[in-house]
Amino acid sequence: MDGVTMTLNCDKLIKMALAEDITSEDVSANAVIRTYVKGNVQLICKQSGVICGLGVFARTFELLDPATQTKLYVRDGDGVTAGQLLGEVTGDIRVLLSGERTALNFLQRMSGIATYTRRVSDMLKGSKTKLLDTRKTTPNMRVFEKYAVKVGGGANHRYNLSDGILLKDNHIGAAGSIKKAVAMAREYAPFVRKIEVEVENLDMCREALEAGADIIMLDNMSPAEMTEAVKLIGGRALTECSGNVTAENIDRIIQTGVDYVSSGALTHSAPILDLSLKNLHPVQND
Amino acid sequence: MDGVTMTLNCDKLIKMALAEDITSEDVSANAVIRTYVKGNVQLICKQSGVICGLGVFARTFELLDPATQTKLYVRDGDGVTAGQLLGEVTGDIRVLLSGERTALNFLQRMSGIATYTRRVSDMLKGSKTKLLDTRKTTPNMRVFEKYAVKVGGGANHRYNLSDGILLKDNHIGAAGSIKKAVAMAREYAPFVRKIEVEVENLDMCREALEAGADIIMLDNMSPAEMTEAVKLIGGRALTECSGNVTAENIDRIIQTGVDYVSSGALTHSAPILDLSLKNLHPVQND
Amino acid sequence: MDGVTMTLNCDKLIKMALAEDITSEDVSANAVIRTYVKGNVQLICKQSGVICGLGVFARTFELLDPATQTKLYVRDGDGVTAGQLLGEVTGDIRVLLSGERTALNFLQRMSGIATYTRRVSDMLKGSKTKLLDTRKTTPNMRVFEKYAVKVGGGANHRYNLSDGILLKDNHIGAAGSIKKAVAMAREYAPFVRKIEVEVENLDMCREALEAGADIIMLDNMSPAEMTEAVKLIGGRALTECSGNVTAENIDRIIQTGVDYVSSGALTHSAPILDLSLKNLHPVQND
Amino acid sequence: MDGVTMTLNCDKLIKMALAEDITSEDVSANAVIRTYVKGNVQLICKQSGVICGLGVFARTFELLDPATQTKLYVRDGDGVTAGQLLGEVTGDIRVLLSGERTALNFLQRMSGIATYTRRVSDMLKGSKTKLLDTRKTTPNMRVFEKYAVKVGGGANHRYNLSDGILLKDNHIGAAGSIKKAVAMAREYAPFVRKIEVEVENLDMCREALEAGADIIMLDNMSPAEMTEAVKLIGGRALTECSGNVTAENIDRIIQTGVDYVSSGALTHSAPILDLSLKNLHPVQND
Amino acid sequence: MDGVTMTLNCDKLIKMALAEDITSEDVSANAVIRTYVKGNVQLICKQSGVICGLGVFARTFELLDPATQTKLYVRDGDGVTAGQLLGEVTGDIRVLLSGERTALNFLQRMSGIATYTRRVSDMLKGSKTKLLDTRKTTPNMRVFEKYAVKVGGGANHRYNLSDGILLKDNHIGAAGSIKKAVAMAREYAPFVRKIEVEVENLDMCREALEAGADIIMLDNMSPAEMTEAVKLIGGRALTECSGNVTAENIDRIIQTGVDYVSSGALTHSAPILDLSLKNLHPVQND
Amino acid sequence: MDGVTMTLNCDKLIKMALAEDITSEDVSANAVIRTYVKGNVQLICKQSGVICGLGVFARTFELLDPATQTKLYVRDGDGVTAGQLLGEVTGDIRVLLSGERTALNFLQRMSGIATYTRRVSDMLKGSKTKLLDTRKTTPNMRVFEKYAVKVGGGANHRYNLSDGILLKDNHIGAAGSIKKAVAMAREYAPFVRKIEVEVENLDMCREALEAGADIIMLDNMSPAEMTEAVKLIGGRALTECSGNVTAENIDRIIQTGVDYVSSGALTHSAPILDLSLKNLHPVQND
Repeated sequence: MDGVTMTLNCDKLIKMALAEDITSEDVSANAVIRTYVKGNVQLICKQSGVICGLGVFARTFELLDPATQTKLYVRDGDGVTAGQLLGEVTGDIRVLLSGERTALNFLQRMSGIATYTRRVSDMLKGSKTKLLDTRKTTPNMRVFEKYAVKVGGGANHRYNLSDGILLKDNHIGAAGSIKKAVAMAREYAPFVRKIEVEVENLDMCREALEAGADIIMLDNMSPAEMTEAVKLIGGRALTECSGNVTAENIDRIIQTGVDYVSSGALTHSAPILDLSLKNLHPVQND
Repeated sequence: MDGVTMTLNCDKLIKMALAEDITSEDVSANAVIRTYVKGNVQLICKQSGVICGLGVFARTFELLDPATQTKLYVRDGDGVTAGQLLGEVTGDIRVLLSGERTALNFLQRMSGIATYTRRVSDMLKGSKTKLLDTRKTTPNMRVFEKYAVKVGGGANHRYNLSDGILLKDNHIGAAGSIKKAVAMAREYAPFVRKIEVEVENLDMCREALEAGADIIMLDNMSPAEMTEAVKLIGGRALTECSGNVTAENIDRIIQTGVDYVSSGALTHSAPILDLSLKNLHPVQND
Repeated sequence: MDGVTMTLNCDKLIKMALAEDITSEDVSANAVIRTYVKGNVQLICKQSGVICGLGVFARTFELLDPATQTKLYVRDGDGVTAGQLLGEVTGDIRVLLSGERTALNFLQRMSGIATYTRRVSDMLKGSKTKLLDTRKTTPNMRVFEKYAVKVGGGANHRYNLSDGILLKDNHIGAAGSIKKAVAMAREYAPFVRKIEVEVENLDMCREALEAGADIIMLDNMSPAEMTEAVKLIGGRALTECSGNVTAENIDRIIQTGVDYVSSGALTHSAPILDLSLKNLHPVQND
Repeated sequence: MDGVTMTLNCDKLIKMALAEDITSEDVSANAVIRTYVKGNVQLICKQSGVICGLGVFARTFELLDPATQTKLYVRDGDGVTAGQLLGEVTGDIRVLLSGERTALNFLQRMSGIATYTRRVSDMLKGSKTKLLDTRKTTPNMRVFEKYAVKVGGGANHRYNLSDGILLKDNHIGAAGSIKKAVAMAREYAPFVRKIEVEVENLDMCREALEAGADIIMLDNMSPAEMTEAVKLIGGRALTECSGNVTAENIDRIIQTGVDYVSSGALTHSAPILDLSLKNLHPVQND
Repeated sequence: MDGVTMTLNCDKLIKMALAEDITSEDVSANAVIRTYVKGNVQLICKQSGVICGLGVFARTFELLDPATQTKLYVRDGDGVTAGQLLGEVTGDIRVLLSGERTALNFLQRMSGIATYTRRVSDMLKGSKTKLLDTRKTTPNMRVFEKYAVKVGGGANHRYNLSDGILLKDNHIGAAGSIKKAVAMAREYAPFVRKIEVEVENLDMCREALEAGADIIMLDNMSPAEMTEAVKLIGGRALTECSGNVTAENIDRIIQTGVDYVSSGALTHSAPILDLSLKNLHPVQND
Repeated sequence: MDGVTMTLNCDKLIKMALAEDITSEDVSANAVIRTYVKGNVQLICKQSGVICGLGVFARTFELLDPATQTKLYVRDGDGVTAGQLLGEVTGDIRVLLSGERTALNFLQRMSGIATYTRRVSDMLKGSKTKLLDTRKTTPNMRVFEKYAVKVGGGANHRYNLSDGILLKDNHIGAAGSIKKAVAMAREYAPFVRKIEVEVENLDMCREALEAGADIIMLDNMSPAEMTEAVKLIGGRALTECSGNVTAENIDRIIQTGVDYVSSGALTHSAPILDLSLKNLHPVQND
């Protein structure tokens, strides 16, 4: 993750997470360790998968104490296997103990999402269809989770309600018709926005196309209908299939020829990747 | 969730989540709906499970507009089934559209945790062993996730590093012995804290008991060892088994007679419960 | 301005502006008015122009005291003239005195921008060219200033660096070529983003077109070159002319047939519209 | 600007302005520049005027990345001319690109105010009358704008409602008389406050003087009246003329002999000074 | 305390204090009270003194729950005696329990300061000397403590380093002489500031007077010297005696004829006034 | 104070306190010192006592300018005497002047509490009774004041309402009986919490013991009753005496044999320890 994003958008969230875990002090650590002792601890992988969030992991300790140093042997996106040594953290032992849980909570969740995304996106290999995330992210974790999807091989859909336009049945109903809704959006929104319209059948698809939609989302359609819709659109708009994508039904989606398939599960239901900090031991002070 | 906790600890996080999803405005909604129109939308269950987070769900809309009203037909902890109407939200249609995703992101995740916890805690029924959560929660979601565990039938372990003491090998190593570590913690910590010690074998267990530990965590022990440890302790301290609890191995844990078993998976790997907002429609203004 | 945007994005800035003006208390008001006295004050226009920011004006007083009531006789975007009564505020006289300056500082600036934008956009009437703002806004005032541009008849360019892509010479240099830069952006960015490329001559323009740019910004070109560029592009990408637009040179830009012309002056150099609060007087308590 | 003010009062506002422009990441920069490349960019003046805000300009980049270095060839208050090289910034190219707009938005506005203030204050040279700013500043920009006025040769009026007392007609009305208002303020306010009274005619002026006002603001008076008022006051209080000061009418104000003349236009209507960052290019890493 | 100050400057601090006391939830209250029960509790005085902070006390409960109602039988500044019923709070019993300690912590401290200030200021009665506070306040409590001093009958010195000027030996040393220091301050500071100079002997006093100081602080002088200094100054500047004022030495200070005497003890060493909430009991719901 | 606590919990409060004292700039310092001058100032003790808060003192200057350096000759908890040189601060003279008051306000108050606590805890020497603080701390100062109590030789009671359980008459009333209240708390609270019950007579004491209370608070009992209660409890629960502990009555409390005695006065009524910064002088720049 680049430094500007980390500074402006992640630091605050990492500090809040640390403060959530340490509302006054780390009583256990402070009870037994009364002064500075330099220590080193190893980051060990306990389960095969894709590692993601190493910058956030390191930053968590740095925010507690800028003197903490993290040495990493892998990079975001690398495949890792159980037992593998991924990195080491060196610094005040109290800092290593106090930051451990928060650093791992970030790293495990981000790696879990990257691992799951890699698995699904690998199924799309060889096809023209690309995998997308959604806005179904954990509250206040979007910047981390959208990044993890990219690291896992997925692409990002809009970031939020302010930077993308998706006109659904309610918007269309309020406007009166797809044509009117697209025209209103075209007139209202910053001109750099693409306009996406959600359609449920071929008639709506045709209407969206005529209205000049940049992206057409095929919602709740059968593979046969989707195939027809993609043919109808003929490249004049991008197509997105939205629905409960699983390893079981993904074949049928690919065959339809849609440009994109979006999956909320990437961020809302991926289990974590198991990682741990081990072998904490004092080291010679400099 | 009680009002004091909501006001002091949740409101800020809910507002941040809303601002994460609306960095300037909801362009889609504002493009097609230029003035106040009163609307109503239904909260529908799409998957069986345990509902949790209804207060947070309602609060999300209230924080966008205090005039929004939520009517609920179920309560936190209720079992719900696919297709069931759980509640309705009434207010400015733009508010309903703008808050939908964030409100559902909270509700689905909390319900997912409650559902998963209910499933595991049900397996402990009839035994004396109780199910505990851990600090392996999503960053900045602890207040919501610990609550969901309780709603699902689990009990809470310590909230964070400041309000509970757990002396692990590193603390013991730093202090010199279990006895010294417990004594240092007893002397340093607020006197209302129980002191928990993590042990890996019977010798350590005996030492912890003699040192006056209030809780002994049996780590990485075989069921046979745990059974012996529980017998050795004989009720003079509470016992906790920590490890990868699954439906497959839980039988063996119960047989050991430990007082508590803690599971990180409750909060770090529960899939969401699928819910949605449907049938948004304008209603007569008052 | 819609309520969601106000709540999530404006309230915090309005409160900060009030706190900037009242770091402890309004000493003058509190010295002479020791208890609640209900009062009324009139919002009077002192200069002809376009009014904008009435919601922010009213909200400023409400944030000081929710009991304050504002009655408005005009709406954002209305033309107003010197001497015209625009509205009235009723509430605790200390609140009216304490909020006056901050409320006017917002209203005058937003109205100044709307007035200036209206003047320039009126010059484009009859042509196909539309007027755009830029990111040259006052720090921490963007949400107010971009809104004022729209009220004045302009359209918004991208909101910020996160929600729009503009590849300039430095980006192109880093990538190696326009083609590579567009491809990298296409691969990296959320798929809902349009990609804009800044070009300085016809060769670059051709290259951008072939690379599949959605928008081509014609920078530092003569009217003749721009005319040729627009012809070359032939509607296959949107065109934007960026430069020091003034009433004097705008004719020549319109003739080139570009789709958009952007002007930083709308937000960075518009003088305020003069407005004042007058005739504060006590009114009967309810 | 001194370091204490920067740290306590500016840093937060600069960070907010950066976050306003980068809500998730700089998509354009991150798309084409995937790793650290050291670069250098030049700050070039495009219009003659007074430079102001160089510390804020440099700080903007430092807050994104403390490793960024700014070399300046001029100092706040220096006259600058079109084409002049004012300074250079060296650091991670992504940081230079991401911070450019925000850094310039601050610098251009502050320099615009300093330039405009210098022009007006130069007209007062040779007289005893000094130029003052007002509280008509841009919301959340006061600390920057009041500083720019000083750099431009103006003096500051009160900073806000908490640190200065100005009794206007409403305060006087509430108190019952000028005498009572001054007495109440004298009794209520911190004893280090000077008390200023706004008067509209000679009678009020006399009353304010007798009440012991420290400063008398002559409001809406003709030059003749003001001359008489200044004579009447005879140095027993400071005098301030408040009104629409322009290059056209300022002569008549100077002749009245008032001590101070305040002008809201300094901060609310000064156009920016045009500046730009040019010639960004990679440099050898150290 | 007026509503504007409360809203802009106190609310945030009160909320922080509540969050300091309730980092997740009020476990005791929530354990035994699972649903809304309306209750009433009495505010009882346990020690004679001056009550102060009733608005802050009431606001603490309101911030937890706007439905809470406080009825008060006394007003800030009233003398109160042990056993006296001062007010009642009615609302959700959990809110009454959760807010009790924080509300009392504010009220007891503010009343303690008001009580102590009243005692010292009463000693000055009949003389021309007025009692002042200092900046020796508890961190983040200044807005409450300066108010309490006024309620107790004292007057406020400058609020902070930004709204008052006090030139001490270090400032004078840096400037080169008192004359230069005063001139520099006169030139630099907002023109509404009075300039105070700290002097240690008659020579410095004379120099300060000639330099045009508005206020002269007599530091570490004997009563005899102070008397002479006051005579020397002869009303041409205000005089302030700063030092360890106690009931024992105050007589000698009054005799010197200084205008003001400042005392840090008012805010840094006043013991609290003992108050408590009693007789909490359920009441009929409406 | 350890670095983690400082970073996560103190830094924000120290910065707020500095901003409370410098809302725009330090006018006095900036008026006379226009550029960087390196200086040194001494921290001198003016009154005998226990020093506490040296880390916070040093941090205050570091937060204004990380280049500031503090050299300390004593450590928290050391006895200090009037006239003693405790440390020196070296850095930008404006930073030394601007931070002085805030740094001392923290240090004096923390040292005052440590001094007072040492005095009372010394009276308990030789007995088995330990001294405890309470939640009667200054709002937003708890992290500093609880630390000062420990430095002074006291022990900490619960930190706040979330990390300790104390069942008082109202909780017991709501639950129906002590037995029910303890059972509800045991079931509801995190299992690491000890449960404390407040009792007023021997019957309640017996009931609390039978209910399994971990700690029993003897409230408002005579020494004779307390003695009997302690005997009755016989070590099966910890005992705490809560009341107005003074040097006069403490003997009688010790004789009762209670384990702990808590005193609100430690934090709410300790006078400050007088300290000052002296001999500020320029030093050679490096």
